Amino acid sequence: MHEEPGHPGVPMMTNQEFRTYAHELVDWMADYLQEVEHFPVRSTVGPGDIIGRIPLHPPPAGEPFGTIFADFRNTIVPGMTHWQHPSFFAYFPANNSPPSILAEMLTATMGAQCMSWVTSPAATELEERMMQWLGEMTGLPPSFTGVIQDTASTATLCAILTARERRTEFRVNAEGFSRERRFTVYASTETHSSIERAVKIAGLGAAALRKLPVDAGFAMVPEELERAIARDLSLGFEPLCAVATIGTTGSTAIDPLKRLGEICSRHGIWLHVDAAYAGTALLLPEKRWMIEGIEFADSFVFNPHKWMFTNFDCSAYFVRDAASLVRTFEILPEYLKTPEQDRVHNYRDWGIPLGRRFRALKLWFVIRSFGVEGLRERIRSHLAFAQSFSRNVGEASDFELLAPVPLTAVCFRYHPAGTDDPATLDTMNSALLDALNKSGRLFITHTRLNGRFALRLVASQTNVTQQHVDAAWDLIRATARSKEVLHEGAR
Amino acid sequence: MHEEPGHPGVPMMTNQEFRTYAHELVDWMADYLQEVEHFPVRSTVGPGDIIGRIPLHPPPAGEPFGTIFADFRNTIVPGMTHWQHPSFFAYFPANNSPPSILAEMLTATMGAQCMSWVTSPAATELEERMMQWLGEMTGLPPSFTGVIQDTASTATLCAILTARERRTEFRVNAEGFSRERRFTVYASTETHSSIERAVKIAGLGAAALRKLPVDAGFAMVPEELERAIARDLSLGFEPLCAVATIGTTGSTAIDPLKRLGEICSRHGIWLHVDAAYAGTALLLPEKRWMIEGIEFADSFVFNPHKWMFTNFDCSAYFVRDAASLVRTFEILPEYLKTPEQDRVHNYRDWGIPLGRRFRALKLWFVIRSFGVEGLRERIRSHLAFAQSFSRNVGEASDFELLAPVPLTAVCFRYHPAGTDDPATLDTMNSALLDALNKSGRLFITHTRLNGRFALRLVASQTNVTQQHVDAAWDLIRATARSKEVLHEGAR
Repeated sequence: MHEEPGHPGVPMMTNQEFRTYAHELVDWMADYLQEVEHFPVRSTVGPGDIIGRIPLHPPPAGEPFGTIFADFRNTIVPGMTHWQHPSFFAYFPANNSPPSILAEMLTATMGAQCMSWVTSPAATELEERMMQWLGEMTGLPPSFTGVIQDTASTATLCAILTARERRTEFRVNAEGFSRERRFTVYASTETHSSIERAVKIAGLGAAALRKLPVDAGFAMVPEELERAIARDLSLGFEPLCAVATIGTTGSTAIDPLKRLGEICSRHGIWLHVDAAYAGTALLLPEKRWMIEGIEFADSFVFNPHKWMFTNFDCSAYFVRDAASLVRTFEILPEYLKTPEQDRVHNYRDWGIPLGRRFRALKLWFVIRSFGVEGLRERIRSHLAFAQSFSRNVGEASDFELLAPVPLTAVCFRYHPAGTDDPATLDTMNSALLDALNKSGRLFITHTRLNGRFALRLVASQTNVTQQHVDAAWDLIRATARSKEVLHEGAR
Repeated sequence: MHEEPGHPGVPMMTNQEFRTYAHELVDWMADYLQEVEHFPVRSTVGPGDIIGRIPLHPPPAGEPFGTIFADFRNTIVPGMTHWQHPSFFAYFPANNSPPSILAEMLTATMGAQCMSWVTSPAATELEERMMQWLGEMTGLPPSFTGVIQDTASTATLCAILTARERRTEFRVNAEGFSRERRFTVYASTETHSSIERAVKIAGLGAAALRKLPVDAGFAMVPEELERAIARDLSLGFEPLCAVATIGTTGSTAIDPLKRLGEICSRHGIWLHVDAAYAGTALLLPEKRWMIEGIEFADSFVFNPHKWMFTNFDCSAYFVRDAASLVRTFEILPEYLKTPEQDRVHNYRDWGIPLGRRFRALKLWFVIRSFGVEGLRERIRSHLAFAQSFSRNVGEASDFELLAPVPLTAVCFRYHPAGTDDPATLDTMNSALLDALNKSGRLFITHTRLNGRFALRLVASQTNVTQQHVDAAWDLIRATARSKEVLHEGAR
């Protein structure tokens, strides 16, 4: 730490020090990525273990970077769950990749805030082009316009708000809810929890959300939608919006978009398509059947930050009617006016936050570095891993699949012969999950399907290979069959 | 690019390549930061210049990183406005600093998604402690609990939603707006545009927002609040929430928190304090008078990503009643349940997005690297720069200050003797702004105060020194006095 001209007495890391430390970090970063699979996937710390090691009060004087970095390695890293571990099979992935990390380094260095065109022309225009690339890559109609949001939760909220405003001719924005109109929103029991959160935030109330029953494959049933709409209309409700999910969070079920879309179109209902995870699979022409009927959709979201090797956060939100999206959110205080404002995109008006990071750069680096064919090959290999794992489950007499496997999530459970009590099976599988994750050798999560406790393995991590998936199966089978877990489960 | 085991035929950047490129980037990054002041501050490109240089379609095959990085340098960088340029005096800053960039490198590499404790225990617990540090550093009552949001816009929306829910006993979340209750929200004409956006999103309607007139210093007038509340009560409205701003965007006016708080407290109105920019000044004990009355506040937001040298995005949101915040947003689908969920913070329920980046790390690096005293010294020097600039303006017979300068923003205009027509002065200053920003030697923005077009210079950039502020003044004065600008302005 040296003094710097212009700030007498105030130490700040010099440029030379920054350069030295950054090189040091790069070696740690490359080592980390190389060795990540030697860490326990899920952190082994308990609640309070980490915070107890961080001082209660901030330091009055600056500390040497060497100390800070050592604390990072010794205190923080052991408390992390390693999302880039190839045996991270939990939730949906939040993949990064080398080109994405490189882009994030540059983004952090420039530190540009991209709210308006003028505040970052290149970031704005690169975002516009990258959204065109993603639209083409996923087979969306060219009439869709894209914008990057932080998460699919936010994108879904934007969809519901825009639906609300377009339907009311922007009167809720202007005057609040009127006293006469009661709106309803449709989704399935398997749709993501963010739908309910969005319905609440938008002031519609959770009671307005119709969670429709699903079919045997956990997909929405068009007849149920039709019936619910008819019932609501007869009771004086106004059906406003429906959410179709391509790849539900529980079991990656695929709602029948075309038939749902026809119904929505007939009733003038905004159709939002949540493909947060599965959207990446649309890069494969052979998976485009999943969005047959997309021409009926008003909005569509998928997250390159899940499966497409692009650092969180980066959610691609597409709309058919960009003008209504902008009109829902636009604000134009004097201090944000610029001469060219009518000839450019000012993405601050395309969502909730005013400030925006430069998120298009990592997409550009990822897409160009892998190439579309390179991305496809990797996605295809993930699909094949899931098929191989599900074959193993299907062939084992003491395991069973609990849902179809259209993509990379496998929902299954241990079900040894003679154990048929539902509660016992749930307890047993819950104990199995716990034992597996405590091993540190993999991380899987669970869900409930038809009331049953289901183990859930998602084979989409950037670094996963067939060997990791095979090792996971070996470990799961061996752990399940070991006396301890059975005993634990039976207690 | 080499083939990788497990993905036959699919090239991906190898670890060794990543290491090499990342080192190459570090040298570019350090050079960039060293040389940033040699770039034009505001990009000189025009609308369409950049997008025209990005191919219409994504590449089928992967491209070498050298090509991608060269395109970044040649196509993207010239199209960027340089927010880390020491002569960036526009808007409010979005400062980074060397330790913050180092933290972002590590964050991007680990790529952890921090929605729940279990998905990143260390990130969750470090966030808890960093919020305690920030609360202490800014002099907030210890009863406040903090959480990181992306932006103050989002934090303000969270405040209004929580106010709405607590007042209605969570009934709007459950059932939507009832037919009888009409809520109102109070702020000044100078409050940030995000308040109106939040009021709209929350379903209250822009008509519910009372934008109260300000005093000669652009601060809220307690009597106006009292009067508006009385009027609304008499008309059957329910006063719900008031927003006090510490450091307005236009002129950094400071609303009188204590008197506003007493009024809100008396009427049971949620008081949200927006100190997005000015919160950093609270690190200085001599600036704590700005939040006298903070004990009346229900929520408070400030952005370390503006003035506190921490990469965007990082907005620190504090609440007195964390339980109501969580209850407003919480969702608990099966796939997110964990055994320790009741003993830990799961920050996914503290705001709108489900997924979250690891943003506490950069705060930890920044606070420890500067030290609290180091941060204070730097903030004090920025305040001194603004004072010196405003003295220069005040002493020049052909310039005038248009607002008090309590912090680091100076609002002023060129006003030569004999030119008193308001429209001419506006045109002249608008032309001056344009000429200055086109020079590339500084970037300032504008606002309107009492209807007058005001130039606005904010001296808070990480790298700004007295020399940059003096050079800005020399350039502004010389440009204003040059015949061309006068001519331009008089046309």
